Order: sequence, then C-alpha cells, then structure tokens
Amino acid sequence: MTDSKPLTLDDLPVRDELRGKSPYGAPQLDVPVQLNTNENPYPLPEPLVERIAERVAEAARGLNRYPDRDAVELRTELARYLTRTGGHPVATENVWAANGSNEVIQQLLQTFGGPGRTAIGFEPSYSMHGLIARGTGTGWISGPRNEDFTIDVAAAEKAIAEHRPDVVFITSPNNPTGTAVEAETVLALYEAAQAARPSLVVVDEAYVEFSHRASLLPLIENRPHLVVSRTMSKAFGAAGLRLGYLAAHPAVVDAVQLVRLPYHLSAVTQATALAALEHTDTLLGYVEQLKAERDRLVGELRTAGYEVTDSDANFVQFGRFEDSHTAWRRILDHGVLVRDNGVPGWLRVTAGTPTENDAFLDAVRQLKKEQSA
Amino acid sequence: MTDSKPLTLDDLPVRDELRGKSPYGAPQLDVPVQLNTNENPYPLPEPLVERIAERVAEAARGLNRYPDRDAVELRTELARYLTRTGGHPVATENVWAANGSNEVIQQLLQTFGGPGRTAIGFEPSYSMHGLIARGTGTGWISGPRNEDFTIDVAAAEKAIAEHRPDVVFITSPNNPTGTAVEAETVLALYEAAQAARPSLVVVDEAYVEFSHRASLLPLIENRPHLVVSRTMSKAFGAAGLRLGYLAAHPAVVDAVQLVRLPYHLSAVTQATALAALEHTDTLLGYVEQLKAERDRLVGELRTAGYEVTDSDANFVQFGRFEDSHTAWRRILDHGVLVRDNGVPGWLRVTAGTPTENDAFLDAVRQLKKEQSA
Repeated sequence: MTDSKPLTLDDLPVRDELRGKSPYGAPQLDVPVQLNTNENPYPLPEPLVERIAERVAEAARGLNRYPDRDAVELRTELARYLTRTGGHPVATENVWAANGSNEVIQQLLQTFGGPGRTAIGFEPSYSMHGLIARGTGTGWISGPRNEDFTIDVAAAEKAIAEHRPDVVFITSPNNPTGTAVEAETVLALYEAAQAARPSLVVVDEAYVEFSHRASLLPLIENRPHLVVSRTMSKAFGAAGLRLGYLAAHPAVVDAVQLVRLPYHLSAVTQATALAALEHTDTLLGYVEQLKAERDRLVGELRTAGYEVTDSDANFVQFGRFEDSHTAWRRILDHGVLVRDNGVPGWLRVTAGTPTENDAFLDAVRQLKKEQSA
Repeated sequence: MTDSKPLTLDDLPVRDELRGKSPYGAPQLDVPVQLNTNENPYPLPEPLVERIAERVAEAARGLNRYPDRDAVELRTELARYLTRTGGHPVATENVWAANGSNEVIQQLLQTFGGPGRTAIGFEPSYSMHGLIARGTGTGWISGPRNEDFTIDVAAAEKAIAEHRPDVVFITSPNNPTGTAVEAETVLALYEAAQAARPSLVVVDEAYVEFSHRASLLPLIENRPHLVVSRTMSKAFGAAGLRLGYLAAHPAVVDAVQLVRLPYHLSAVTQATALAALEHTDTLLGYVEQLKAERDRLVGELRTAGYEVTDSDANFVQFGRFEDSHTAWRRILDHGVLVRDNGVPGWLRVTAGTPTENDAFLDAVRQLKKEQSA
C-alpha cells in the first residue's frame, strides 16, 4: 500500500497517555549468548515435543469448533500440579488460565482495577504490572523498597493506608532483583490492604519454582482477596507457549470470567500445555540444574568482586556500575546479551546453560579487569 | 480448598459496572446438531492436521524461547492472503494479528477508545463490540438500523455527528443478521466520523469470505483511520485456533503495539496459523460449499413460510416468531441447537453440513406445521 503523505502514529487519534510511548519489550539482538529475558535455556525434551505434536494433532481435528471456553481439563491439571508442588490443595475451580501471566494480570486489573481505581507495586519490580495498569486505565502507584531490594514493610503499609489502592502487587521472587518475599510480609500487606479498602492482593510467583523457599500459595486459604499468579514460561521451559494461570478463591475465578474474552485460550495452547504438564518431572529436573547454575553465578560474581542481590529466581542482579548501560554494552561486545532493566547501577543476567554462564562469567571478569586497570 | 463461609463473586470488590453481569457465551449444550455459534462444520483435512503437527513440533523445539513478538512471518502470509483475495495489495506492515478478532478489537479500543471516550455500533450487531467497549472502559453508543437490518445511513450519520464517537464499528456481513454493507455506506460513515472528530472506523469482516460481494479491504487506501478486521475462525475452519487480524495503515499497526501485551501470540498459534494458510485453497473450497448450503437454507426457509433476512454470511436469520425463545426451545427438542440472539422475533442458524441442514429444515418445517395447526 502506498500513501501520498508519510503519516505516522503521532498523527492518529490515539489516547493521550499513549503519545510518545514505545512498545514494551527487550531488544531482540542476534548474539551468541542471550541471557536477557529470563528464558529457560533447555529446549523441551524430544519425547515431549512428540507428545505436543500428538496432542495438537488431536486438537487440530476439532479445530473448526471453538475451544473449551472454560479450559476445564487444563485447569484441573494445573490444580493438580499446584497441589503437588505448592504445599496446598487446590481444585479446578480455584484455577484460571490465560495467554501468559500478563493476560491473567490484565484480566485481574479489568475486574478489580480500571478507570477511577488504582494499583500499587513496590519498585523496582516487574514493569508490566505498571504498564498493564496503564493499558487498563488503572492509576499506578510506585511503592518503595529497601536499599537491599526487600520490601520496606512499614513504608509499604503506610503507602497502602495513604493511597488505598484497589490492587496490590507483590512479586516473589521479585523481577529484576531476584528477591523473595517473606510470608509475614505478604500477610502484613494483605492486612493493611484489607483495612484500607479492601483490595485485591496479587502475589506474582512467575519464578517461584527457582526459589529456595516454599510457594506462598497456602496463603490463599481463607483469604478471598489474595491471588497467586504463575506461568509456564520459566519452570516449564515454555515461554513460547504463553500460558499463565492463577490460584485463588473460586469467586475470583468467577469474577475474571466477566471480563475475559470468550474462548480466549486456543485449543492448541490448551493441548500443548496439557502435554507439558505430563512431563512435569523432567522439566522440574531442569529447574534443579538451573538453580545450581544460578547459585554458581551468584558465587562467581561475588568472587569476581561484584555486588550481587540474593536471588531466588533463574536470574541474578549484579553491580554496581557507575554507568550500567556502558557495562551492558561492554558485555555485549563479548557476545553476551544481558538485561539493562533501568535499575541504576545494576544489570540482570539470566541463568543459562553452564557453557553460556561460563561465557558470561568470562565477559564480566574481563570487564572487572578493565575497570580496575 | 474449603472456606468457612460461602463467599460469592458479589462479595468481591469488583468494578461496579460488572456487578450482576454474566460471562458472555452461547450455551454449550450436548445435542446432535449444533448450529448456534457460526462454526465451520468441516473439520480440517487430514493433510493439514499433519502439517500442523509438523510445524508445531518445529515450534515446540524452540518453545523455551519467547515467540516472535511481532509475528512477522505470520503477518506476511496473512498479507499475501489478503492481497490475493481482498482486491487490494497489502504488505506485512499493514497487518496485525492477535488471539481472535476479539483481541484485535480489544487492542483497538485500548488504543483509540478507553475511559472518557466512546464507540458506536449499529445494532443488532456483534454484541462483543459493546462488551469489549465495556471491558476497556469505553462508553458504548447503540446506533440504529432499518427495519430490514440494513444500516440507516442518514440516522447513522446523525448519530455520529451528535455523539462524536472515537470509534465506529461497521460489521459486514453483519452478525446476527447476515446483512452486507455497501461500500458507499462505509464511505459515508467514514466521512461523517472524520468530520465529527476524527475517529477510527473499524469494518469487522469476520464473515466476508461467505459474502456475495467483494471485501471492503480496498477502502483502507488513503484512509488511515479505516481498519478492516478479519478472523481465521470461520472461512479457515479454525475457531479453535483463535487467530484474528486486521489490515490498516502501518501507523495503526504501530499504534496497537503500544497496548498489546508483549509476546501475546504464542509460537504454537503462529505455527498452526501458518500451516492453515498453506492450505488456503482447500479451505476456501469448503467456503464455496457452505455458501451453496447457506443459499439453500435461505430458499428452503422461505419456501417453508419463514421470513428470512438476506444473508452474506455462513448463517441465516429467520423468523418471525411471536416468542422466539419458545421457538428456539422447540427446535432444540428436535435435537438442533440454533442461536437465540436476543433479536426479538428472530433466530439465527449456522450453515452446517448438508445433513445437519436437513435436520434443521425438518425441525423448522415441523415447527411451522405445529404453529399452523
């Protein structure tokens, strides 16, 4: 299509708050070692690939029909997985699934946030919480953290009491810092949030399978305003699948169905996720390898003279740099892509394969030498 | 999970406008002949099922990585399909894809509608337009139609001038009536909408492959505020895939990327859609069969004494009934599920296989006899 004048996005009648913004997303650069998006470096094992092909073929034979709108089989298997690994019995009606935990969060904000309402997160944290708030018309409040990136409970309670947010995000382990949140902290913020409004508390556990600590899932018991969100992107090695889910009181699951797009979850997504859940044990084996590599990264980075934030995730925040963007660039010159998350003085590296991690460690040791020289 | 008190959705702090609402969706009843959701009755051919399995297996081998965020290969093939069938050359940068045309519409409303803005549709029409407006905080204006379900152009122009909506929906062929919209009508409403605000005009062509008339796609030329939305659910026989797309000026494609969730379209969805596009000719062959069956339904229904709205879609609106819900129920008693869309006096039947359509025609002929008796 040709047009006579070079019209751009800025000429369109888009919402004012979108003007001058850029789409979210890490640069996708073609370098040998990509440790920037917290992907699992282990491809799915071939028997699982075959099982996916099998289940998808089965689903494709009925693809002319709409998918199961309520994804009952998938939610049942996710509930079984949570029950087995989360320290708390969860039933199908406690679970909801969507296209990535981003869509889960979007649905929660459409239901419990939205125009005239607000949400709070404690930053630095997963920046999509704030971006999805913006996308759903929810006001965003940036809450504080301690210097060591743990949540400052007193300050957080004060912020909640003052702003009375409708939705509270607690990310554990936190992205991009890797910091786990204590159950007592969640409980304190939950109480503060209930006293203030009551509001919905969303515990984002995208990385919890990599944690040294147990899941916060048991906290949903008798707390109908507490939601735990999860994803298959990391522990299940399925970032390409886009399967996020939540566990909460069944009333919350009923509530998000008021805003979910009908048939939001395709039959091929449901089939692929079900196949992956059949191979849970193998995939959790990779998680154990990645935890060991993560711990090795933490140790080696400290040995090399870096400051490292304690990590319960499949990534590590390290620093400090006077100019983290220049450091990012220097590491990239060694063929290793890490993430410059915009936390001043810090960078984030994903735990890759042992070989990838060695390449990264070589690069940062070299960088340290250059800095000392 | 057990809870001491039976808490329900109404006890949760959901948004006021969601209170008392029910999730959208047709009843999924287990009856022999299901002609209620405008699905394509022809399963995908087995060679395509095999190709899907092959392409999904390939995608599954890289499933640990995020999918192509911009779905470039898929958008390129969709552009090729539109160029070939839509009467207008379309390039990759004119096309955007999402999880069903519902998500396309949601992204458009998040970008061009939202809080403090309004959208108009001419009803009865696809009810998701209004529901997604609600879900995105966009005010909804119900515009008029003529008695014969065509758009009353003068009344529509007046409504646009009066309400100055930010987004205008024109559904062609219209669901649930089957009514095609003339290009001149679209042009008149586009001009009215530009004079009023300017606003975005979305032409929803979900069913256009079944139409007697050409696509309205060529109208996007030199009209940067005109969007044509499409789906693979109907003509491609892939309702279970959830693949919707749009064609518009590249600036519109840039704009929706400000609100799209990153990596919204899974690698398995992209792979499956690409496989289906390889089999376009076979699938469009089924479309021809369905058009013939649709025309047969129109003829036979009229012969049987029913009023029938002219249809350009894969479904037919028929009536009139004093009590359409009772008629719906009587047809269901014959094992045939049609749609009671809430258009007083009318029901909607999807064109199924010849055998399914025969079962439907038997049921409605019987119903007519009972009514005359």
